[in-house]
Amino acid sequence: MPHSLDALLRPESVAVIGASDNPARIGGRPIFSMLEGGFKGRLYPVNPNRETIQGLKSYPSISSVPEAVDSVVISVPEKIAIDVVKECAAAGVKSVVMFTSGFAEIGAAGVHAQSELKTISLNSGMRIVGPNCLGVFNLNQGWFGTFANTLASKKIPTGPIGIVTQSGAYGGHLFTITQNRGVGTNYWVTTGNEVDVDVAEVIEFYAKEPDIKVIVSYAEGIKDGNRLCKALDAARKAKKPVIFMKVGSTEAGARAAASHTASLAGEDAIYDGVFKQFGVYRAETTEEMADIAYVCQFGRYPSGPKIGLQTISGGIGVQLADAATKYGFDVTPLPKNTQDKILNLIPFAGVNNPIDFTGQVLNERKLLEESMRHVIDEADYDSQILYLASLPISQFTKDISLEIFTSLRKQYPDELMILSLIGPPEARASYEALGYPCFEDHSLAVRAMAALRYFGEVFKKEEVVSPILIDKKPVITRGQRLSEFEAKKIFYAAGMPITAETLAQTSDEAISFWRKIKKPVVLKISSPDLQHKTDIGGVILNLDNESEIEEGFNKLRDIGKTKANKNNIEGIIVSEMVSNGVETVLGIVNDPVFGPTVMFGLGGVFVEVLEDVSFRVAPFDEKEASSMVDEIRGRAILNGVRGADPVDVKALAGALSQLSFFAAENAENLSSVDLNPLIVLPNGTKIADALIITK
Amino acid sequence: MPHSLDALLRPESVAVIGASDNPARIGGRPIFSMLEGGFKGRLYPVNPNRETIQGLKSYPSISSVPEAVDSVVISVPEKIAIDVVKECAAAGVKSVVMFTSGFAEIGAAGVHAQSELKTISLNSGMRIVGPNCLGVFNLNQGWFGTFANTLASKKIPTGPIGIVTQSGAYGGHLFTITQNRGVGTNYWVTTGNEVDVDVAEVIEFYAKEPDIKVIVSYAEGIKDGNRLCKALDAARKAKKPVIFMKVGSTEAGARAAASHTASLAGEDAIYDGVFKQFGVYRAETTEEMADIAYVCQFGRYPSGPKIGLQTISGGIGVQLADAATKYGFDVTPLPKNTQDKILNLIPFAGVNNPIDFTGQVLNERKLLEESMRHVIDEADYDSQILYLASLPISQFTKDISLEIFTSLRKQYPDELMILSLIGPPEARASYEALGYPCFEDHSLAVRAMAALRYFGEVFKKEEVVSPILIDKKPVITRGQRLSEFEAKKIFYAAGMPITAETLAQTSDEAISFWRKIKKPVVLKISSPDLQHKTDIGGVILNLDNESEIEEGFNKLRDIGKTKANKNNIEGIIVSEMVSNGVETVLGIVNDPVFGPTVMFGLGGVFVEVLEDVSFRVAPFDEKEASSMVDEIRGRAILNGVRGADPVDVKALAGALSQLSFFAAENAENLSSVDLNPLIVLPNGTKIADALIITK
Repeated sequence: MPHSLDALLRPESVAVIGASDNPARIGGRPIFSMLEGGFKGRLYPVNPNRETIQGLKSYPSISSVPEAVDSVVISVPEKIAIDVVKECAAAGVKSVVMFTSGFAEIGAAGVHAQSELKTISLNSGMRIVGPNCLGVFNLNQGWFGTFANTLASKKIPTGPIGIVTQSGAYGGHLFTITQNRGVGTNYWVTTGNEVDVDVAEVIEFYAKEPDIKVIVSYAEGIKDGNRLCKALDAARKAKKPVIFMKVGSTEAGARAAASHTASLAGEDAIYDGVFKQFGVYRAETTEEMADIAYVCQFGRYPSGPKIGLQTISGGIGVQLADAATKYGFDVTPLPKNTQDKILNLIPFAGVNNPIDFTGQVLNERKLLEESMRHVIDEADYDSQILYLASLPISQFTKDISLEIFTSLRKQYPDELMILSLIGPPEARASYEALGYPCFEDHSLAVRAMAALRYFGEVFKKEEVVSPILIDKKPVITRGQRLSEFEAKKIFYAAGMPITAETLAQTSDEAISFWRKIKKPVVLKISSPDLQHKTDIGGVILNLDNESEIEEGFNKLRDIGKTKANKNNIEGIIVSEMVSNGVETVLGIVNDPVFGPTVMFGLGGVFVEVLEDVSFRVAPFDEKEASSMVDEIRGRAILNGVRGADPVDVKALAGALSQLSFFAAENAENLSSVDLNPLIVLPNGTKIADALIITK
Repeated sequence: MPHSLDALLRPESVAVIGASDNPARIGGRPIFSMLEGGFKGRLYPVNPNRETIQGLKSYPSISSVPEAVDSVVISVPEKIAIDVVKECAAAGVKSVVMFTSGFAEIGAAGVHAQSELKTISLNSGMRIVGPNCLGVFNLNQGWFGTFANTLASKKIPTGPIGIVTQSGAYGGHLFTITQNRGVGTNYWVTTGNEVDVDVAEVIEFYAKEPDIKVIVSYAEGIKDGNRLCKALDAARKAKKPVIFMKVGSTEAGARAAASHTASLAGEDAIYDGVFKQFGVYRAETTEEMADIAYVCQFGRYPSGPKIGLQTISGGIGVQLADAATKYGFDVTPLPKNTQDKILNLIPFAGVNNPIDFTGQVLNERKLLEESMRHVIDEADYDSQILYLASLPISQFTKDISLEIFTSLRKQYPDELMILSLIGPPEARASYEALGYPCFEDHSLAVRAMAALRYFGEVFKKEEVVSPILIDKKPVITRGQRLSEFEAKKIFYAAGMPITAETLAQTSDEAISFWRKIKKPVVLKISSPDLQHKTDIGGVILNLDNESEIEEGFNKLRDIGKTKANKNNIEGIIVSEMVSNGVETVLGIVNDPVFGPTVMFGLGGVFVEVLEDVSFRVAPFDEKEASSMVDEIRGRAILNGVRGADPVDVKALAGALSQLSFFAAENAENLSSVDLNPLIVLPNGTKIADALIITK
């Protein structure tokens, strides 16, 4: 299936404008790399001042090149760059790689030049990567649209990894680090200023490209959140792990914070939500990215939490068990029967889990193999980690060790086993070739296995059906100001239960409602002008007799008169006092990048002090909502603590999903929403307060 | 100053029993290593069957050796090991290193043999390391009481690190990993079964040993917590960083959990408290231990939080800033004046902080140096991290780069700068020699700097005066059962304020107390038999009129009659209802390893759901108590949230310190204490409930 980036990333014909005969110069490096790397296509150097470039015929201009090439590398100074890009477009070039800097990254003058580029691209359909990027490469094709000299100077092992980064310098750094970690990269793209091609589109390309099995991405800022979500979804559907480093300020910056939700919606918290929603592994450090990419390239993912830990050192067994437990693995003991068999072979072995073979396996060669066969055949572990110290590489044991692992691999081709062993990268190569990932640090092996397990779960999910928006008309209009009473009516109409309530104009009306519901009531001023009623004493809780209600009513009426525009007081809300259940906070924030996004948190200190909240991009289904609920730290509250009944988590998930649909349907006109609290009862939920802020 | 381990770790005369002429055998390796390593002392092989061993005269028995040696390596089978140890003791040997296994680690039979060893050691005063250990070494002395062949087979760079581990296999592993990381170890001790010498005593030795500047320790279980605390305190006083990995189950195991505090006092949480109390850095992984040990060996610690970040890649600058912020550094911008100077030198530089020199410094050689001088001279940063990619090692820039950093070091000998650069270890050596720690991964450089800052703060603390226990008589006796009322009287007598209250025998007494204090009251059954009153409805809150009080009193009296031994109901506690302030939980648990240990947490969900608590070993002063308060996640509650007044944190710290003294004074007879809640008011604190469980 053709992809919009085929011409750029799988070109059959390429020109280099500003080509140099000197392989060391920026204009010479791409040609040198392609000659060395065996570019599988037609290569045209463009330089009006020379007959030949590095042995190839040189063309005076792009228009004199005998075909409309797939991709052009532009390595000319900024002052003539725009003209060169125009020439390319005129010549029918399909894509250009722009190293040239001096555009948006330098401020106002550059912004203008960059918008010119944008216009050329839009009008001609010619794709542009950059400007201010370090280019692209595709190893299998021998295509080097980059001057990065890390690449030209070393033998690069091809592999199933696709890298895409915004920063060129960091892209080069990441490539070096991943190479050192033994990660084989095939595609590498740096998107620079992203005048046209962005990180999301490249991820989408990788999701479709059969040569790529693992996607590694780095971004500082995303302009189009929706496109990113679609690309991540495509990668998940293709069962390709995405490892992402998103950096940037953790502060909410200049966003509006009129609602509670908005003030909690730091950019970073939303990215966290998006990454969880689309099954992305968020890496914190380059070392972590390289480690996880490395282990993913072996393509085996555990199908469950049961892990077998095997070691030749008791101390390291304890560490493995600690780490595995911390990462949520199930360190199930061996079956009793298997324990006995191993004890028969190795009398002092630890046979629970971790399985400690002790140093004895160093002396008696076949013990290790026999024990391991018992474990694999009988224990039903979803994954295994083996700490072998230097056994697989020391001169005395390396041959037998390799023999054992070769024979095991033959018999158990799908068995997922990570080896922890000490030694130089070369020494590990033969185990890696057999499909065993190798780690020097056993704790990092556990972290890597946890990442595999994360992806295993992500890929196991039945095809996520993106919820389809029924084309409902938005119910919110721009500039509308809504009171609590009106807001709750809107959610009620959208199918979300609210507290029993009425809008009273007199204390008699209030009292008669109290008589009707036979429960204590809450009184609240209802006015679109009063968004934060509690702050001005506009809420009175738990009234349960006539005189209290009358007194409260009059007090609120007086406050209302002074605090709100008199015409805008609709009356006093009289609502049932809900005293059981768990208070939660649900919200919507209309994020500038990702659009309508839903927040969930528990009430009280959880949101106010601990900022224990989760986010998802709207709309989403109940399953996604459940995982959103499950990931907060205070989750146990919903199960009932201190003798309280468990509450209806299914109904809560339903409410979150419904709210997400409401958010999506009203995205155009909505700024933010707080349902604070939404009370989760043993059966069902009730919105007890609602605030809608429109655009 | 002599130390109890001098003979073991700095011996001037050494014998090897079970010596072998073959350097490859276990009994041959120590001799071979000492001959190779140039042991600075007298070496006596013991083997009755040979005239010479590896060219040295061999002695038939330890008694025939011409002096009472400082240390003996015992490499004989378990069945004759005890006899050999006895011979050593008889010959006046000062210490032995026992490789032999087959003791407590194999179960009952071994336990007996091990207790024999213990007896020999106690009676003779001869120190024993092991059994079942991998031995010890001291490089400067050329002393190799180990058969680990990782050591014999490679050139070991001496350095200021002392390693001590319980597990021999892990000790060897750690040594290899730290060596690969460029960490220079001088002393290495594995303590095995710890029949005599334990990890704590070795730490104490390292604290006093001038050759050691950094202590790296690993333990699975500590028998004597008090001794460990003393050793850690000695290290802190000597300004030697201790990096500790403590592994083992995170579950509380078989401990009594009659009190709330006890159930929260998981072994791991107490170790966390101890490590914070004594300024220890707790490492999670071997890689982390090696990294932190590596950076500590340079001996420079920041004196404050202000960090300067410099980079030649904008993308990595963002990552550095993110990581530094996350680790609590203060990423202060450059002074305006300095910004201008740098912009004059490098027009497109980022000059806030991170300082982005851009790739231009690669072309113009002296720009980097001039800019850096401005930063050092004018910005007053406590530490700096520089990301330089491969600049300091690539063929074009390495000479000038080394020149720059040499000249900077000359002028600023104390400037703490970590370099992040890509390249093999060899390439970094010249920068390390100048005192610049080097990291490939810039994020790990930030983690390392955070560790240095941690130690900087630890060492900066004015000498911690260990609180001195005035020799008070314990007020708690063994087996005593105390009611809430009695327990509170005890704390009141110890100087801790409690709620105003009385013990009423009649409802009239209760009412007259209510009249006296003019506040709502709480009624509680007081009986030493009822430790958990709330569970049986034995507490009624917030009563504020005569009939309510009378009714409540009668209800509790009836409950008391059925639930408690009638004779043991002391009466009904009538106490003031404290409705302002913040509820906290203070507790004491008498830990089997560390003795009386104090817990702190906030009331409600913080303790119940989030287990957000901190621990310290008793006794401690108010300053330590403050840091205990500061480290909980919900700390902000005490500053007042949602319009509440801030509460008296100083009084809270005072209460914690007082409780710690009470704990220490009554350690003999106390099992656990809960003050739940202790209410922290805007002024002062009040204990509202207290439970004392004695041994």
